[in-house]
Amino acid sequence: MTGENKLLKSLGISKPTLILDKKRVLQNIESLVNKAKISGVRFRPHFKTHQSGEIGYWFRDFGVTSITVSSLDMALYFSKHGWSDITVAFIVNTLEIDKINKLASKIKLNLLVDSEQVLSILDQNLKHRVGILIKIDTGYKRTGVQWDEFETVHSLAEKLKNSTQLDFHGLLTHAGHSYRAKSKEEIRQIHSETVSRMVAVKEYLRERGLKACEISVGDTPTCSLADDFTGVDEIRPGNFVFYDLMQEKLGSCTENEIAVAVACPVVGKYKVRNQIVIYGGAVHFSNTYIFDENGRQIFGYLTSLQNGTFGPIYKNAPLILLSQEHGIVSVNKKIFNKIEIGDSVLVFPIHSCLTCNLYREYHTLTRDVIPRL
Amino acid sequence: MTGENKLLKSLGISKPTLILDKKRVLQNIESLVNKAKISGVRFRPHFKTHQSGEIGYWFRDFGVTSITVSSLDMALYFSKHGWSDITVAFIVNTLEIDKINKLASKIKLNLLVDSEQVLSILDQNLKHRVGILIKIDTGYKRTGVQWDEFETVHSLAEKLKNSTQLDFHGLLTHAGHSYRAKSKEEIRQIHSETVSRMVAVKEYLRERGLKACEISVGDTPTCSLADDFTGVDEIRPGNFVFYDLMQEKLGSCTENEIAVAVACPVVGKYKVRNQIVIYGGAVHFSNTYIFDENGRQIFGYLTSLQNGTFGPIYKNAPLILLSQEHGIVSVNKKIFNKIEIGDSVLVFPIHSCLTCNLYREYHTLTRDVIPRL
Repeated sequence: MTGENKLLKSLGISKPTLILDKKRVLQNIESLVNKAKISGVRFRPHFKTHQSGEIGYWFRDFGVTSITVSSLDMALYFSKHGWSDITVAFIVNTLEIDKINKLASKIKLNLLVDSEQVLSILDQNLKHRVGILIKIDTGYKRTGVQWDEFETVHSLAEKLKNSTQLDFHGLLTHAGHSYRAKSKEEIRQIHSETVSRMVAVKEYLRERGLKACEISVGDTPTCSLADDFTGVDEIRPGNFVFYDLMQEKLGSCTENEIAVAVACPVVGKYKVRNQIVIYGGAVHFSNTYIFDENGRQIFGYLTSLQNGTFGPIYKNAPLILLSQEHGIVSVNKKIFNKIEIGDSVLVFPIHSCLTCNLYREYHTLTRDVIPRL
Repeated sequence: MTGENKLLKSLGISKPTLILDKKRVLQNIESLVNKAKISGVRFRPHFKTHQSGEIGYWFRDFGVTSITVSSLDMALYFSKHGWSDITVAFIVNTLEIDKINKLASKIKLNLLVDSEQVLSILDQNLKHRVGILIKIDTGYKRTGVQWDEFETVHSLAEKLKNSTQLDFHGLLTHAGHSYRAKSKEEIRQIHSETVSRMVAVKEYLRERGLKACEISVGDTPTCSLADDFTGVDEIRPGNFVFYDLMQEKLGSCTENEIAVAVACPVVGKYKVRNQIVIYGGAVHFSNTYIFDENGRQIFGYLTSLQNGTFGPIYKNAPLILLSQEHGIVSVNKKIFNKIEIGDSVLVFPIHSCLTCNLYREYHTLTRDVIPRL
């Protein structure tokens, strides 16, 4: 890992640092942009993963004009970066009505609702028009009207008809249960089930005279693996911009598509355990884990730098334990002897959204520093 | 929970907000200050939990003059807040030698070392004197020289004798395995084992002519539960300042000592599942969990406000699932009917160090805003 270390030194790494492979990010964006184009659906990528104005501009260069975020603060941030068509994919938090009004006065703002109570609060307190999507629960069981409660959805949609400030745009779902799938086949199955459930709701509304009704879906596993988007108007994946070890395990990406890693100084070597200790803990990775084939909790895997891009996932160099600032990497003797105190190692994260959230900036392999929200 | 909600509204809560019960914090500080005084040991509290200059001053008011931190950045921050005797309880990261020199030129800086290689690097690169503690592994198996490798410790201590910039202060350990204990008795056992192992190392050095050698121990479970600190010179607990649900489960604190909670807006109610959904997810809590008696993962428990302080742990209102920004609270019918969309609920965190790390400020119950690093 000599070459790698030389590069990390040239990047001036002395503490845990979030490293971005811009080339891979652009490839990941292009891939989904093309898929959306071929499928004839609107691409409204979720920006909660990168939360960076500058990375947002990279999407703009591919012709993207509409985005998704998960909070009003994120919507405010991206509206300042020139985005004027934003969906907040989080059911309305009525305590933030002032922020909603502020945003709605400036941009085309789309909000999610799943209860009559919130519709009424919005209707009474909004000073500007917003688009409304009814959140549908197609199986994730987090938020949304359960998909087969057709009458509830219909009643919400009818209520919207009579509102002066609320425009009914359609139905939105997030099939987050795809993250619990055990195979690519199961993910594709969840996708087709999700779409058919959404289409059933839409059909119910259409039969009752509600004709203009979009269908918005989108999580990274299904959007990465599915090819048929018939019936869908819009997709909203987010994680695909960086991917991570969880997505690689799910089969949504290959190791060559993972675009972020954390560079961590090596501070200790423990020969009797074949373990190296890095400056890099739960506050640098989040403590998300996956299980390896032996049922062991894994908090990351080492990678390297090869020809200016990230190398493979070193399955024989897992991050097996995190405390607040320390990480323990278990390695074989060969790797143990290669890594020295004072080196930096690169670690692929389990869940890039949560890992990136812990940093204020990205460092690219070409030495640019990119700020985050 | 009407009274509670009124207070939360008066605090202006509209998104996940870290709430501090200052009175409890002061009680927690006083309690450990007194224990250290009675036990005749130096109190060097770990400031990684609160990471706040202002909360640091509260310790100062109790006569505390020496502190522990877990990174050089934290040491720099607290040195700017007037602390001039700081131990960085993280083995030296040689890539940060410039920061070490900067700090050592200003304050009494104590560093941890567990290898000859790092001692040499320090010896060659330091421009100012620092105190050195040899990190001992008394059973946690993270960093440190294994306690019974007496000769290795002795050889490090001998090397220090000949250095111009390094002052040997003594031995330091962190019995982090106390967090895995199953009972208070086991925690007390770990404490006495830790101390006796440290004393054995010290004795070995003393017999070989090294007389001035302090013993520093300190994790919150053992420091909270142990009463006998014979042989110990210094304790360094950190989490005790706030405690949390993990400590309550371990038996290190009672529910009346937990001093932080996260206020979260209620955004959804799902009657068929008796679940409420809050704006508050892994980016607001960290995704640390404990198991309840049924083996279910628990990410937090609701509490309330009662007479200006936090109420009990509502074991019948657990936070059972977190995604990036959402949390799902499972409740019984009675609580379900009491909580409304637009309310805010208070949630005790599992691990306060990791939760607080996700915020830039604390809001006290008396409406003060306290910044963090």
